[in-house]
Order: sequence, then structure tokens, then C-alpha cells
Amino acid sequence: MRLFAPTQALAAVLALAAAATGEPETKPRNLIFILPDGYGPASETMARDYYNHVHNETTILPVDEMAVGLVRTKASDTLVTDSAASATAYSCGIKTYNGAIGVDDEVRPCGTVLEAAKLAGYTTGMVVTSRITHASPAGFAAHVHHRDHEAAIAEQLVGYSHPLGPVVDLMMGGGRCYFLPQSEPKSCRSDDLDLLTYAHNEGFTIGTTREDFDELQCGAVGQLPYMFLPSMGHLDFEADRRADREPSLSEMAKTAIAWLERESAGNDRGFFLFIEASRIDHAAHMHDPVGHVHDIFEYNKVMLEVREYVESRDDTTLVSAADHECGGLTLGVPDYAWHPHALASSSHSAAYYGSLWDEYVAQGRSDDDKRRLLVERIFREYGIKSPTEEEILTTIAATSLTIALGELLSARAGIHWSTLGHTAVDITLFAAGVNHHKLYGSWENIQLGQWMAAQLCVDTEDATVRLNSNATFLESIQPSEPNGTHHDHDHSFMLARDHERYDDVRRH
Amino acid sequence: MRLFAPTQALAAVLALAAAATGEPETKPRNLIFILPDGYGPASETMARDYYNHVHNETTILPVDEMAVGLVRTKASDTLVTDSAASATAYSCGIKTYNGAIGVDDEVRPCGTVLEAAKLAGYTTGMVVTSRITHASPAGFAAHVHHRDHEAAIAEQLVGYSHPLGPVVDLMMGGGRCYFLPQSEPKSCRSDDLDLLTYAHNEGFTIGTTREDFDELQCGAVGQLPYMFLPSMGHLDFEADRRADREPSLSEMAKTAIAWLERESAGNDRGFFLFIEASRIDHAAHMHDPVGHVHDIFEYNKVMLEVREYVESRDDTTLVSAADHECGGLTLGVPDYAWHPHALASSSHSAAYYGSLWDEYVAQGRSDDDKRRLLVERIFREYGIKSPTEEEILTTIAATSLTIALGELLSARAGIHWSTLGHTAVDITLFAAGVNHHKLYGSWENIQLGQWMAAQLCVDTEDATVRLNSNATFLESIQPSEPNGTHHDHDHSFMLARDHERYDDVRRH
Repeated sequence: MRLFAPTQALAAVLALAAAATGEPETKPRNLIFILPDGYGPASETMARDYYNHVHNETTILPVDEMAVGLVRTKASDTLVTDSAASATAYSCGIKTYNGAIGVDDEVRPCGTVLEAAKLAGYTTGMVVTSRITHASPAGFAAHVHHRDHEAAIAEQLVGYSHPLGPVVDLMMGGGRCYFLPQSEPKSCRSDDLDLLTYAHNEGFTIGTTREDFDELQCGAVGQLPYMFLPSMGHLDFEADRRADREPSLSEMAKTAIAWLERESAGNDRGFFLFIEASRIDHAAHMHDPVGHVHDIFEYNKVMLEVREYVESRDDTTLVSAADHECGGLTLGVPDYAWHPHALASSSHSAAYYGSLWDEYVAQGRSDDDKRRLLVERIFREYGIKSPTEEEILTTIAATSLTIALGELLSARAGIHWSTLGHTAVDITLFAAGVNHHKLYGSWENIQLGQWMAAQLCVDTEDATVRLNSNATFLESIQPSEPNGTHHDHDHSFMLARDHERYDDVRRH
Repeated sequence: MRLFAPTQALAAVLALAAAATGEPETKPRNLIFILPDGYGPASETMARDYYNHVHNETTILPVDEMAVGLVRTKASDTLVTDSAASATAYSCGIKTYNGAIGVDDEVRPCGTVLEAAKLAGYTTGMVVTSRITHASPAGFAAHVHHRDHEAAIAEQLVGYSHPLGPVVDLMMGGGRCYFLPQSEPKSCRSDDLDLLTYAHNEGFTIGTTREDFDELQCGAVGQLPYMFLPSMGHLDFEADRRADREPSLSEMAKTAIAWLERESAGNDRGFFLFIEASRIDHAAHMHDPVGHVHDIFEYNKVMLEVREYVESRDDTTLVSAADHECGGLTLGVPDYAWHPHALASSSHSAAYYGSLWDEYVAQGRSDDDKRRLLVERIFREYGIKSPTEEEILTTIAATSLTIALGELLSARAGIHWSTLGHTAVDITLFAAGVNHHKLYGSWENIQLGQWMAAQLCVDTEDATVRLNSNATFLESIQPSEPNGTHHDHDHSFMLARDHERYDDVRRH
């Protein structure tokens, strides 16, 4: 027996609501979608409580004021989505399998809101702190059967193999290693493609240093298409970032918005910008509350600044939603104990110290040396107070020092992580600017993707048709194993690929 | 350095929003507040996914369609609230310490929205599935320094010791044992007060059987004040409820609303009704997904029916929010595994079987008998498929069979519980009817309490003054230990008091 009558389609409800108010249907000229990867409901509570502890006050976070609803996130093949299926849900408005980048369940490419925007004359941008070839950004501008194919994703991003040519006018993020031929040190490719040279020859301007970025920030008028790739791998966690080497996400977002606005000023269409606070997720995978909370603060800074931007004008919409929760985070374990002050003295992310430790190990340092490093520097700087002998020995013996550190500090704070992967809980939807009030309520992630395309009046279907009319391309993105399946239920790749800078977290 | 500028007070934001729309300020005649105790964000995802599995469809829950915002829940003395502090936040609009029932940090009574409504001429009601003397309902109509003082709460509920007399016109719930003198079998009192006789003499009508309820349900016109107390302890979990003994929460809610509407029809003021789906929380404390999900469905049924009620008229507001999350529930542990079908064959709550087991133990049954009961009945009926020998032995040896069962089934479903207590995560706010759109956004729980009082145009301050003018009463509600403190950080009472029907869950 069914307990509840079928619910009304949300679209119908929204249409009714719009009709009831009788207001004219206005559309934004620009749309900015900000994805805080792996930012679940408990992450917001954790960051707010920690912020209030540090500043000895009771305030709310900038995003708290922009909460408008909830998003349901399941993938087509599992109730717990990964970033690839979720990015495709937001970009194409379709449910697909975990691991899928811009393709449906049958591995057919789907037109994304970014591609449709580009085709319609919008200027497009992408600003992230992960590798730019990572699942979330890739899901907006590339099409491969599995997220691991980052070399192919890089080829598509510069238009080398993308049926629509280069679709992203302005890219900022990590992952330069996927654009370098295998002969280059630190290249992540296993072929001789030199995608930076290719891009340069096709008209891209390419920045790789803090100085390159500063020129933009100081108002130098660059030329699109443009790529800024200051790091081989992911950009640093905000807790570890050296300002003389890498700009922050908020600096990049601000610069990108100003540029896209200027560039599209004379055009019929405005801009579409995808921003990702990518590494909130990575810290949660590592069970590191320090990396997590500081990347969340940076996300909030971006949200605050972008909100001020959209509210200073009447033609831009800001939408923000995570792809999924990460880590199974809960606060108050055991026995109602949640003590944010335990995080207050940490200098860096756990991964930073994991990396330091690995260097010591690689140098063949003595056990005494390693113990001294751990107790006198790492524990002290990371904030592990009065470690017991057992804690010291367990940490030294841990497969992953990073995770061991994160879990030690978490336990002191009353923070609990239930998984190294993601969980299924609904995440919060935030919005500001044009039509943000139409986003109130509960959404399936694909509805949100469809809504964004509708706001820009662009047609992802048309993009889908164009992508599918290129037989060579279609062939190239299929799984290579004839008997293989793209439905890869082994998710160990997520942890591994997310953390290539910090090998100790790999758990194959 | 502060990262963010101080946020605007939410009230100011709301006032601005109201001014901007230019709409006249309408107020509801009636307000219904529904509290799903211990219903965190993951509980909603769990129930929805399970519902969709059972019915092989993709729909959303009734409450999904009513989501309007988030609520922040911390207590004055801890970031993880209990039901008492939270109920007081909603009822009085003040932060107080865990354990506090209708009193502030200095153990001064605070006027509740229900009391203020009663004083202003509203008809008042309270419908719950826990003991009516339990923390959440008590927080709306009683004042004691600690939630454990349920005998004193019972005295206040019938007006025996409440400075304002009986403030709840219509009460339905469990906990009859606290109204019976100690001479009665199953009495929970340690004195000779016979509160049912007292109440009867003061004009209360008292129902205790399903038949008593049926008469009301069939339209018999009863007289207020009225109490319906069909059970000595909590009412049954919905998964275990025998319809011939106890009405469901939705039946009671429907009957109460019709009665309150009828009763207040000729009055200047309408009614205020507090409804609690009390035992969503209890099942989570026990790590029992079966009891949890079926009480959540019943809560959804109530929400759907009340929504239809408020939308059939234009004078009533429905507000619903949990007091806190419970159990540290996450879905997808380990490795992205969340399989709701594991719950589909369960016949009863884990506590039901825990009770059955305890009877066997009390009867001095043989080990063979007990093992047969466990394997051939309990495991089979509760849905523990193919138990290993180790699982059988561990369950037999467990301190609490109830929790052991819940955790076995949870593990098969990919459900993880991180604590036997509550956690700090924000919970979801739901609303319908008059002014529900004014609730969009993020709220502190005390703001929501203040908002409800403002909607009813009632003055909790006046109630506070009256309560504090009675010196004998003030004296009577203080902690008895001269050197004791009301700030009791031992929360083991929560688990124990919540589960008096199922002794095996006690963990002192």
C-alpha cells in the first residue's frame, strides 16, 4: 500500500508559484554556479561553530544567509553519488552512473550548460582548486566514460579533441601535469602530446606563476581564451597555501568575474562561470578537520564576495550547491562532546604533515629522528596535545600518517568520520541575485541543472546532438575493454586520484 | 582577524523583505508546531530512499515539499543540545542548558508560547507519542530544573502545582504512570498523589482506552480540559503499534485539530497545538533503522494531513522542525554502500525483539531456547539474513540485544550510527500555510520560538512575570542539592529515560 500520493512535479509547483505572484519572467544575463565539493550539512555546522569559537561570538556564516533549500543527490546506479555523476547531473540535467563525465548511462555524451552557453554566445569560465581535469570541472566541459581519463579530459579542455572546439574561455586551476608531454618532468601523460604548446598555437594565453596572475589582478587586459595553471597537481589547501606562489580561490574568482564581465560587455549574452571549492572534499576524505574547515572558510569568502557582486547589479544569478557529503561527518562523539577549540592551534592541514613525514621516510631517517619529527613538530603544530605513548606508536605505524593525524585531532574535538568516501544525505542549496527566490525548496540535482540552463535560455539538447554527430569522438570516449563495463563499483580510485599529491592516503 | 563582517540580524532581514513586498502583515488564527524528535537531515534521506525502494519509484516525501530552511540548535552550555533545552528554545525563545525544562540558565521559569497563548484566550493542545511528561512536551507547559523530574511535570500539567493552573486544554500521549499514586501497580511516583483523580475533580475528562479515543474520533463532543493517556510509558513505535490498543499519531493529531477548531470556533482567538513525533529519536538512540523509519513515515503522514488542513483554509500556520539530530546517522558505510532493501523485511522495531528477549531471559530459559528464539524468530523477523556464527554469539552476549540487532541490520544496509546520543548538525525547517514563506532561510532555534509567539501576537514576557511572582513555586523547582549544579553533563539519563519500556538499552 502506498503511504503517500504521488507528489506534484516540482516544476509545476514552481510554475504555479510564479503564476500566483504574477511577476514577469526575468532572466539573468550572467549565471555563476559555485560548487563546494563534499560540503555536507555537518560541515556547515562545524565551520560555524569553529568560527564562533575562534572569534568568541555568535554569528552565522555568509552561506547561512543564502540557504534556500535542499538538493537530493543520488546517481543512476547508486544512492551515494561521486563527483563525476553529480557534476553531470548539474551540467547536463541527467542522472548518470558514478564515474561518468558528461555522458549518460549508455556512454553517450550530453550537452552541458557550459557548452550550450558557449554555443549561444555566452563567455564561459571555470575556476577551481583541484586539477582542472578533475571530475567536477570536467563534468561541465568534457565527455569521457570514466573520470580517471584526465589526459583525455585535458585534450578536450583545450579543444584538441572536443567536437565543439575549446568551450571554456577562461580556466584557472591545478593539473598542469596533464597538459605536458611525457618527456617533461612531472608530466602525468603517457604520450607525447604537448597541450600547452597546442593551446598556445590555437590562440590561448597561458599563465603558470603568481606573477602571471598578479598582472591580471592588477588590471592587465589579457586575451581569451586563457588558462592559468600554477600547479602540476591540485592547488594547495587554503590552510597550507603560500600566497607568494598561488592565489586564493577568492582572488581567482574575483579576477575571473571582472574579466568575464569586461569580455562579454559588448555582447548580446553575458557569462557563465563555474567555480569550485574543490578541496573541502579532499580534506574530508582524509578525515582532516583542519584542511576541511579552512577550505570552507575560503568558500564562504567567495560566496560573500560573489553575493555582494550579484547584489550590486540586477542581472546575475548565484547558485551554489555541493555535489554530495563527504566523510560521513558527525559532531558530538562520544557523549554530546563537540569542542571546536581543539582545532584552534593547528598550523597546517594533516596532508601537509603527511607529506613532511613521507619525505623523512624517503630520506631513510632513523626511528629516533622520525619520532622526534612527529612528537616535537607535527603533533605540536597540528594541535595534538599531550599525546599518549600508544597514540605516538599507533601514528608511527599507521598506513597513512595524514589520516591518523586527522583522526587523532578529530577525536579530541568530538568529530567523527564514518567513511573514507561519500554519504547519501541531502545537501544545502544556496542562492542570491536574479530569481534566487525561485529556488526555495527541495530539488533533485538534475532539476537544478535544468533550471540553470533555462535561466540562461540555452539548449543543452542542441549541444547533445552536435556532440553525438561526431563518430570518431564517440568511439574515442568508450571504455577500451571490450567486455568491460563503465559501471565501476570499485570506488577506491576516488581517494587515490583525489590525493595524488599525498601518496600516503592511497588505499587500494 | 575576522574573516567575515558581522551578519545582519535575521529579524532585520525579514522585516526588510516584508517591507519590500509591501504586503499587509497578516497573522494566523491558529498555529500548529510539529516536532519530529531526533530527525536529522540523513534521517530524511534514509526514509525517502527506503520509501522509493519499497514502492519502486522515485518520489519525494511530503515533508520534502515543505522544506523552507535550516535551524541551528546549540544549547547555552553545549554545542549539542538535548530535547529539554531545545524545547525551551522553541517554547520560550531563550537559550538554556541541557536538561532545563521551561527555565533559563538561572533556573528562573520562562513563559512559553503555549502558556502565553492560553493566557491570551487561545485553546491549547499537546499530542505526543512519548510520555506526555517527557522533555519536549514538558518544555512547552512546565518548569523544572531538570527533565528527570517527571513527577513534578505531571503535577504541573494538570494544574496541581502550576502557577497559571492547567495550561493545556487537550493532552494526548503516554506516561500515565506519572499521574498515579505509588500504591497503584506500575506507578512511576514515589508519593501518594493521585493526579488523575485530582484532574477529574478539577473538571478534566480522562480517556485511557482505544474505545475512549474512538468515541472522540467518531464525533462525540467531549469537554475540555481533556487528557488521553492510553499507556503507562511511551506509546508504541509505529512499527509495533497494535491498532486495537493505541491510535496512531496521525489519528490523534486529526482528532485534536478538529476538536480544538470546534472548541475555539466562537472565541476571539483560535488554537495553538504542539504535536510531537517523539520516538523517531528513541529508535535512533537505539540504532534501530526500522523503528526510526516507520516513525518517520508516520510523521510524514501527519505533516501531509496537517498541510492539507492548513491549505484548505487561510488562517492557520504549520511550522515543523526537529530539536536535534540523533545517533550521528550517516548512509553509505563502508564504500558508498547504502542499500535500503536490507530494511524491507523487518516486522517490528529492534526494541520489540529486545523486549521479547528479556522476557525469555527473565523466565530463565535455557541457552538452547534462547538461541532458537534469536535465530529462528528474531533474526528472521527483524531481517538479519544469513547470520554468521560469530554474529549469533556476539548478539547473545550483547549488553543490549536491541542495539546489537539495530547495528547488525544497519551494517547490512550501509547505515552507520556514530553515537548513542545526539549530534550538532543543523536540522531542516518545514512550513505551510499563513506566512510560511516568511520562514525561508536559516534560523537560530530561539528565533523560531520568538517568531511563533509573534505570529500569535502573544506575550511570553507577561507569562514569565506571572510565573516568577510565585515564590513557593520558584522554590519548588530549584535543584534540591545545596551544592549541586543543574548543569549536569552526564547525559546517560537521556538514553535511560527514553527507554524505560526497554530496559536492555540502559547504559548507566
